[in-house]
Amino acid sequence: MNLFYQPRLPEGIHYLDPDESRHCTKVLRKKQGDTLHLTDGKGFFYTAVITHPDPQRCTFEVTEKQAAPTRDFSIHIAISPTKNADRLEWFVEKSVEIGIDAITITECDHTERIHIKLERLEKLCVSAMKQSVKATLPKLTGVVPLPEFIAHVKATGKFIAYVDPDNPLHLYQMATPHQDYVVLIGPEGDFSKEELALALQQGFRKASLGPSRLRTETAGLVACHTLHLLNTV
Amino acid sequence: MNLFYQPRLPEGIHYLDPDESRHCTKVLRKKQGDTLHLTDGKGFFYTAVITHPDPQRCTFEVTEKQAAPTRDFSIHIAISPTKNADRLEWFVEKSVEIGIDAITITECDHTERIHIKLERLEKLCVSAMKQSVKATLPKLTGVVPLPEFIAHVKATGKFIAYVDPDNPLHLYQMATPHQDYVVLIGPEGDFSKEELALALQQGFRKASLGPSRLRTETAGLVACHTLHLLNTV
Repeated sequence: MNLFYQPRLPEGIHYLDPDESRHCTKVLRKKQGDTLHLTDGKGFFYTAVITHPDPQRCTFEVTEKQAAPTRDFSIHIAISPTKNADRLEWFVEKSVEIGIDAITITECDHTERIHIKLERLEKLCVSAMKQSVKATLPKLTGVVPLPEFIAHVKATGKFIAYVDPDNPLHLYQMATPHQDYVVLIGPEGDFSKEELALALQQGFRKASLGPSRLRTETAGLVACHTLHLLNTV
Repeated sequence: MNLFYQPRLPEGIHYLDPDESRHCTKVLRKKQGDTLHLTDGKGFFYTAVITHPDPQRCTFEVTEKQAAPTRDFSIHIAISPTKNADRLEWFVEKSVEIGIDAITITECDHTERIHIKLERLEKLCVSAMKQSVKATLPKLTGVVPLPEFIAHVKATGKFIAYVDPDNPLHLYQMATPHQDYVVLIGPEGDFSKEELALALQQGFRKASLGPSRLRTETAGLVACHTLHLLNTV
């Protein structure tokens, strides 16, 4: 299914933005009278009929609006940027496919680079949302210093991906279903002692993501998928 | 930890191949007497001491050999190639990080492209094995027509990633721990009716990978991680 995105639908904007108009009319070759499926990225799906297939400004008439099913849990991953920008992009795309509510790029003591292309990540969020037929665009924030993030974030299930040799329980074992989760994912050099202490002070609990040594972006995805399995299966 | 790979260690080959020799001596600048950690990719870790740090042929003396812990389950993912080669590469790298025993690239009715760079994928397996500090190199096979693969593969837990609307149980619910699993992952266009019938005839069972529509490479990773969680947590 080709899902189109128009965030201003709730304001009464009933046309596609230029990129989507072009894709719709030139690539997919949709005509007047054809059906369109859209989302506003705010939790709603729409069915519409094309009224004017203009390649710059394809207009439509909404015939149906439907709320996407809501979930009784939410996942927020706070992740250090990766040295290689591709890897972070991969994490963003895959986590949106699986299902994620918020991503915050956090600068940690051992983070190797902090130049991220937020606009590019935002575009990836949109295309992954469309491709995986979701109705809610995840909230993407970056870059926030980790201590600031730790101090302000609100959640009922707060975890830091850090293996405690004395109590190496997996996130799957530690998390309770039906909560609002935040999981901190550190850089390749791991969290510093100070960051760990700060997180623990703020009520974050250490959780393992399995016996294997994972790259940052893989850890982020494993955390996301683990919480999904816990809540949906 | 920098893990080096020498598959011929069991034959008594006590030097690194040229690429690894150069990395060891020029990049990591290891010297005579320094410690090396290696794997043969066949289930063993070795500790060694460098005897001659030649940039083409770094020789060492083994001081210790240790079997890596074995697992009581195995994961074999049979996956269609993806249109974009990068995506398949991501799957290979990430599944090795999480832990996988075998990957077979299977050509399906709706597979869009079958030109894969097997050598490149093999290199990725090796580097992901080293980076995630594992001792067993996954077996990588490709390209095999799906019917041939289905007819010959042996496993105790055989699944096809296909959502049955009447019985949409998740792989996590359907699989029993401590088995040898094979999971078939189809292309973006899904399996054909004939492929599904063939798989079911051969004892494969339909399993869902969650409510979201996943790309091929994401589905492969989700299957791999799901079976891991089932067996290790």
